[in-house]
Amino acid sequence: MSARIRSWWGWGYEDAACSEGEVSGLGFAFGARFGVALSARAPRTLDSLELAPPRFAAPSALAHLMSDDRRLRAAHTYGKSYRDVVRGFHGELAHPPDRVAEPRTEADLVALLEFCEKERVAAIPYGAGSSVVGGVECDVGGSFRGALSIDLGAMDRVLEVDRVSRAARIQAGARGPVLEEQLKPHGYTLRHFPQSFEFSTLGGWLATRAGGHYATVYTHIDDLVESMRVVTPSGPSESRRLPGSGAGPSPDRLFLGSEGTLGVITEAWVRLQEPPRWRGSAGVRFSRYEEGVAATRAVAQSGLFPTNCRLLDGGEAALAAGAGVVGALLVLGFESADHPVGPWIERAVELCRAHGGELPGGIKLSDTRVGEKGRGGEVEAWRTTFLRAPYLRDALVRLGVIAETFETACTWRDFPALHAQIVSAVTDALTRICGAGAITCRFTHVYPDGPAPYFTVYAPGRFGSELSMWGEVKAAASEAILAAGGTITHHHAVGRDHRPYYDRQRPAPFAAALAAAKRALDPTGICNPGVLLPAP
Amino acid sequence: MSARIRSWWGWGYEDAACSEGEVSGLGFAFGARFGVALSARAPRTLDSLELAPPRFAAPSALAHLMSDDRRLRAAHTYGKSYRDVVRGFHGELAHPPDRVAEPRTEADLVALLEFCEKERVAAIPYGAGSSVVGGVECDVGGSFRGALSIDLGAMDRVLEVDRVSRAARIQAGARGPVLEEQLKPHGYTLRHFPQSFEFSTLGGWLATRAGGHYATVYTHIDDLVESMRVVTPSGPSESRRLPGSGAGPSPDRLFLGSEGTLGVITEAWVRLQEPPRWRGSAGVRFSRYEEGVAATRAVAQSGLFPTNCRLLDGGEAALAAGAGVVGALLVLGFESADHPVGPWIERAVELCRAHGGELPGGIKLSDTRVGEKGRGGEVEAWRTTFLRAPYLRDALVRLGVIAETFETACTWRDFPALHAQIVSAVTDALTRICGAGAITCRFTHVYPDGPAPYFTVYAPGRFGSELSMWGEVKAAASEAILAAGGTITHHHAVGRDHRPYYDRQRPAPFAAALAAAKRALDPTGICNPGVLLPAP
Repeated sequence: MSARIRSWWGWGYEDAACSEGEVSGLGFAFGARFGVALSARAPRTLDSLELAPPRFAAPSALAHLMSDDRRLRAAHTYGKSYRDVVRGFHGELAHPPDRVAEPRTEADLVALLEFCEKERVAAIPYGAGSSVVGGVECDVGGSFRGALSIDLGAMDRVLEVDRVSRAARIQAGARGPVLEEQLKPHGYTLRHFPQSFEFSTLGGWLATRAGGHYATVYTHIDDLVESMRVVTPSGPSESRRLPGSGAGPSPDRLFLGSEGTLGVITEAWVRLQEPPRWRGSAGVRFSRYEEGVAATRAVAQSGLFPTNCRLLDGGEAALAAGAGVVGALLVLGFESADHPVGPWIERAVELCRAHGGELPGGIKLSDTRVGEKGRGGEVEAWRTTFLRAPYLRDALVRLGVIAETFETACTWRDFPALHAQIVSAVTDALTRICGAGAITCRFTHVYPDGPAPYFTVYAPGRFGSELSMWGEVKAAASEAILAAGGTITHHHAVGRDHRPYYDRQRPAPFAAALAAAKRALDPTGICNPGVLLPAP
Repeated sequence: MSARIRSWWGWGYEDAACSEGEVSGLGFAFGARFGVALSARAPRTLDSLELAPPRFAAPSALAHLMSDDRRLRAAHTYGKSYRDVVRGFHGELAHPPDRVAEPRTEADLVALLEFCEKERVAAIPYGAGSSVVGGVECDVGGSFRGALSIDLGAMDRVLEVDRVSRAARIQAGARGPVLEEQLKPHGYTLRHFPQSFEFSTLGGWLATRAGGHYATVYTHIDDLVESMRVVTPSGPSESRRLPGSGAGPSPDRLFLGSEGTLGVITEAWVRLQEPPRWRGSAGVRFSRYEEGVAATRAVAQSGLFPTNCRLLDGGEAALAAGAGVVGALLVLGFESADHPVGPWIERAVELCRAHGGELPGGIKLSDTRVGEKGRGGEVEAWRTTFLRAPYLRDALVRLGVIAETFETACTWRDFPALHAQIVSAVTDALTRICGAGAITCRFTHVYPDGPAPYFTVYAPGRFGSELSMWGEVKAAASEAILAAGGTITHHHAVGRDHRPYYDRQRPAPFAAALAAAKRALDPTGICNPGVLLPAP
C-alpha cells in the first residue's frame, strides 16, 4: 500500500483518480443536466506553488519525527471537503502546517505535545485527513508561533483481541482497511464503514463521532467503544474496559466528539462483530415521498433494527440506484452472523406495504455458506461505488462543478418542515447564485424518534468563484437547519467550518463547561485551537 | 395517593409495610437459614428523636416553598440504602436537612438556588429519595451554613406528547407511576421500570444513569433521552431535541450521571414505547453455572436483543423463582408492540440448548389481544414481587439481618475471575464478621462485550453493630470489584458512599475536567457538595 501515491489536493490515490475520459464523460453529463458547457482544468502542480517556510525549527531530539517536506506539508494543509479540494486544486495553500510529525509511539506523541506547549506551537491531530469540516487545518491565529500537524498514521496496529468479549484494542492511527486486515485472521470485523473508510482512522472516527455502517442501534462509532486512551497535555486519560457503567458522567463521552481539542486519542478498545452470514435486502418503491417517510418511520419504530434503512428521494434514487422516476426508494437490509433474517425483513416489508410501498424485485435472502457469491459480489459492487464517490468529486472540481454534501438529524415530527425549508433555501440559493443546480436527500441513519437526512448538492460553478458561491449555499442550508430544529451535523463533526452554527446550537452553560474542561486538560490551549471553541 | 403516608425511615408507604406476622415469618426463615434466633425490634418513633434546629431562616419571599416540619426533615435525611434504613431505624439523624423546599415551577427553583448561593447553603436535589449511595444526604461539611433539601416532587407533569416522534416532555419530579399514569391516555409508556419505580423520579433516573427494564440495547435511561433541561447556578442549559447528533461532545452526556453536582434537571424529552402486545418467555436451566454464563453470552452477542435476559445463580434461582437446585436459571423474555416474537425467542433458546440449557416449561408465547390474561397476570405478579422486595428489607432491618445489594459490569473475559473474587471476598468477610451469610448473583443487563452482575448479600447482624459489620463487607466487595476490573457501579450511581472507589476508577484527567466543568457551572460549589467530587 505504501507504494501508492496519495493526491496532495484531491481525495485518494493518484492511480485511482478518474481518467481524462471519465472526466469528459462527467462534464458532458453534468453540462447537459445544467444546460451549460463544462470543460476540465488541471490542478496547479505542486512544483509551481510557493509554501511559506516553517516558522519554527525541529528540535534535535525530535528531528527524526518531524518533516518539512513540501508534498507532506501541502497534503496536510486541508481535509477533503469540497472547499478543501477546491483550494488545493487552485493551489491556495496559505496556511500549511509548518512541519508534519509522525509519532511512532505514545512516548513520541507526549514529547511532541511537550514541545508544542513549550514553544507555543499549535498541535493539530491528523488521522488520515478526510475531515470535511476544517478539522485538521493549521490557520490557528496569531497567538501561536506556528502549527504542527501530528499524523498518527504510524500508530496503526491492532494490539490485542479479546475473543471472549469480542473486542479489540487498536491504535488510533489505523485506517479502516488497515484495521480490518488485521482483524480478519481473528475472524472478526469492526464493521464501521463510513464513506471515508479508506482514508479515515479509528482515532478520527472517535474524535468526530463518525457515523458508520449500521442504520440503527450502533449508528455512531460511539456505540462501539468500550474504553479509550487519550494523551492530554495534562497526562494520559484511560478509561476502564466496561461494557456499560453508571459511575458518574461517562469519561469516554467527553472525549468522543472532542475533535482533538482536549488531547490526542491514542488507542481504544472497540466492540467487534463476526462477519455476517445471513443477509436480507429489498428495494421498496413509493410513488409519494411522504409515504416513504411514513414507512421508514414505522420500520425505525418497530424494534426490528435493520442494518440498512436508507430512504432515497427521487433524485437520489435516479442517481444512485438508477431507479427511474419514483417518489422514494427505501433500501432495506438486514444482516446477521447468528440467524437467518427472513422474519425480520418480511415484517419490515409488511410495514412498508402498509404505507403504499411496492417491491418490484421482491425480498432477496442470502446465506454466504450456500454459495450465493452473487450477493457478495453485489454488495462489493455497491461498496466500491460508495467508496469511489469522492474520486468523482475531484473530477467535478476539475470541471468547475460545485459538489458537496451536508447532513443533520431531527425528530420525525419536525422532518417534513425541515426538509421543505432546506430544499427551498438551497434551491433558491442555487438559482440565485449558480443559475441552476440540484439538491437530493437520503436518510443515512434512522432512530425511533427521527431520521438523519443527508443532502447532496450539485451546481455549475465558476472557476475562481466556487468557494464564495458554495459558501452562500452552505450558509443558506445551515441557517435552514438551525431554524428547523436540526443539528448542524449528525456525523460530519464541527471543525472550524461549522463553528458559528455549533455555537448557536450548543447550550451556553455546556459551552462554559467544555471550555473549562479544556483549560483543565490543555492549559496552554495548543490542542487544535479554533475547533469547537474559540482559538486563544 | 397523597393520602398514603410514607415511612420516614423505611422504604415505602406505611400501609404497605410487612405485617408483624410477616416479620415473624421472615425471622423464622432467615434464623433457620443462618442457625441463629432472630427477633424483631421496632424502629425509634419520630417523636422520641431530637432534630438539630435549622441553621438558617427561610427568607420571606421563599417561605411558602420551604418547611422545617420534623417529619419532612427526618424523611429527607437519607436515601434508602441498607445503611440509610438502619440509621433511620435506630434514630440516628445527625445531619437532617435544615429545611425542605418544594419548588412548583422552574422560577421557584432558580430563586431557591440563588438563595443558596447568597447564603452559602448547600442545595441537595431530591427526587423521591430512593438513592442507595448516599446521593441525597445533607452532611455537607463545615464550609456551608446549612443544607436545603430541594424536593422536585411537585414538578411532576407530562407537559407535551409528540405522537409522531413517539416522545414526551416530562418534568423531572414525576415518579414512575405518576408519569406512566399520564402517558397511558396517549397510548404510550416509557417502560423504565427500576426496582425503585414507585419511589424514584425521571430527574433522579437521569441524574444517576438509572438502569431500567430493557436487558439489552436501552439498558440505561441515557438511551431513552432526546434532550434535557438543567437549571445550573450559571443559568439553564437546554439541549435540542435530537434523535442523534455528532456536534461535539454530547451536552446531555455531561449531565447524565452528574448526580445533582452541576445543577438540577427540571425536564427532559424522552423516547416512548407502545405497550407490548406480543411476548415470549422461557426459563432455561443449566446444571453448571458456567454453562449458563456461556449461553447468556451467546444470546447477548447474537443481535437478538432480548428485553429480559436475567441469569440467576443457584441461590438467586431458589430465592426468587423457587427453582430448586440448579447451576443457573436464565429468565429470557422478548416483547414487541409490532410483531410476534416467536422467531426471536426460538433462536435464543436454540443458543441456550447448544450450551446445555434445558427448558422444562418450554417457550411461552402470548398476544394480549387474544385474551391471554394469564400471562399479564403472571407478569404483574412478578412485578409486584419485584417492587415489594424493598419492603421486605425494612422487615429484615427490624430483625437485625444485614440485607443489601451491589452491582457492577465487566467484560465476559473478566467475569469468571471477577465473580470468583467477589464471592470469595464477601464470603470470607461474612464468615469473619457475621459468622454466617449468603451472597447470590444475577445479571440485570447484558451487553455483547460483558454482563452487569448484581449481587445480593444476607447475613445475621448484631443490633447496633450492623453498620460497621456491613461496612466491612461492602469494603471487601468494592475492593474486589476494582481489583477485578469492574465498575464500582453499573446503575446505582456514586453518591457519597462510592466516592473513594469512584475516585480510583475515574481517569485523573477526566476528574480534573469534571471539576473544572463544575466550577464553571456552579462557581460557589453549592450543588450537592461531596457527591462525585470533594466538598469545598
